Amino acid sequence: MHMPLEDTIGLNLLAANQHQAEHNREQFDAWHLLCLNLMSSPGAGKTSLLERSLSQLAKEFSMAVLEGDMTTQLDAERLEAVGIPVIPITTGRACHLDASMVQGGLKLLADRLDPAELDLLWVENVGNLVCPAEFEVGEHRKVALLSVTEGEDKPLKYPVMFREADCVLITKIDLLPYLCIDMERLESHIRQVNPFCTVLRVSANTGAGFDAWHGWLHQQRNAQAPGFSPRAPLSRWEPAIH
Amino acid sequence: MHMPLEDTIGLNLLAANQHQAEHNREQFDAWHLLCLNLMSSPGAGKTSLLERSLSQLAKEFSMAVLEGDMTTQLDAERLEAVGIPVIPITTGRACHLDASMVQGGLKLLADRLDPAELDLLWVENVGNLVCPAEFEVGEHRKVALLSVTEGEDKPLKYPVMFREADCVLITKIDLLPYLCIDMERLESHIRQVNPFCTVLRVSANTGAGFDAWHGWLHQQRNAQAPGFSPRAPLSRWEPAIH
Repeated sequence: MHMPLEDTIGLNLLAANQHQAEHNREQFDAWHLLCLNLMSSPGAGKTSLLERSLSQLAKEFSMAVLEGDMTTQLDAERLEAVGIPVIPITTGRACHLDASMVQGGLKLLADRLDPAELDLLWVENVGNLVCPAEFEVGEHRKVALLSVTEGEDKPLKYPVMFREADCVLITKIDLLPYLCIDMERLESHIRQVNPFCTVLRVSANTGAGFDAWHGWLHQQRNAQAPGFSPRAPLSRWEPAIH
Repeated sequence: MHMPLEDTIGLNLLAANQHQAEHNREQFDAWHLLCLNLMSSPGAGKTSLLERSLSQLAKEFSMAVLEGDMTTQLDAERLEAVGIPVIPITTGRACHLDASMVQGGLKLLADRLDPAELDLLWVENVGNLVCPAEFEVGEHRKVALLSVTEGEDKPLKYPVMFREADCVLITKIDLLPYLCIDMERLESHIRQVNPFCTVLRVSANTGAGFDAWHGWLHQQRNAQAPGFSPRAPLSRWEPAIH
């Protein structure tokens, strides 16, 4: 559940979340790990993307996942099957993860392993194209997924998510032959709300586009010098792969 | 934007919304119109469903649409092209319609036509599988859409929406030949959280399932005797078409 935030109470809540998020990020920086926040509509393919990426990257990176879900642990079980540490975070009626929930997940994770040994920490958010975009969890990079089945207009209709994203993954491109969708138009809508983000086309079914996606991940990780907090302006980063 | 509602402020907000929703419903009842609240993830096909239903039902029902969107009027423009009165409601940062926004839309609608001449009033909510389920707008019936591309697990992962729905439309069934999805399993997941709702399979592209869907609409409308408020328990209704 949730309520509008256009008042003092709402602004205080956002400020408190931001404070906790900055604390989380300081921890991530001290541990020299890169934290990525995956966000999308329900069913855009966050868990399927992670299944393939975790398998393919397991020899290159030390990784763990904080898995946000309202009620079930179905996604956490799918990812545990890959052999990567997964901490489920059940949000109950909350429509997004917040920084305190992620802090709670971190404490459980630290009981199982030394976070300083991780390269990448994945946060899979609740499936929601609106609310998670407003609540930082301390991530260094926000990755938004948009399925080709969702239509060309979504970046314009849900601009906050796409404005916040560092990388937009257009997913399920194996379905393109069966859909009426103009990919150039879709990408121009993303650019209209966010000219600077990386945009990549992928299919977790076929693996198409995963070389570029994993290249982007390596680039973000390589740019993360010790003590450097990558949520600084994007201009400090290498040009994005496109 | 939004905040958690697990406190007194949140409960007061929900109570105030409920009060306004009941007022809206009293108006709908006085006008003898049936109000339907369409909800789903972004891109599940609410507007495409309405385009086809409004065209096909235009000779049978007098209809209007309140069209909720965060920022654009793209959907309202699509529906106006069908020749049906449409009032856009721009929610800004809000992730759902609430009863006050719908009341505001009703006032604008009443400037254009006499609501007592309407049979059906459609409310198309913001694309979000979580938040709209918690905020009644005065509707008589909630219709939840779930696209076959979203996966079998969604009713379990987002149970509030499916528990609240009177009718669940499984959309985009023309894509079934290209997907790995077990429809029986998907439907059993819906039944697990809501044994009583009507479940129908449709495609707005091909028109498949629309006879049953429009049959359900006729049934709801026929059951609406003057002064009768259909948000009463479902057991007072005829058995659902299935």
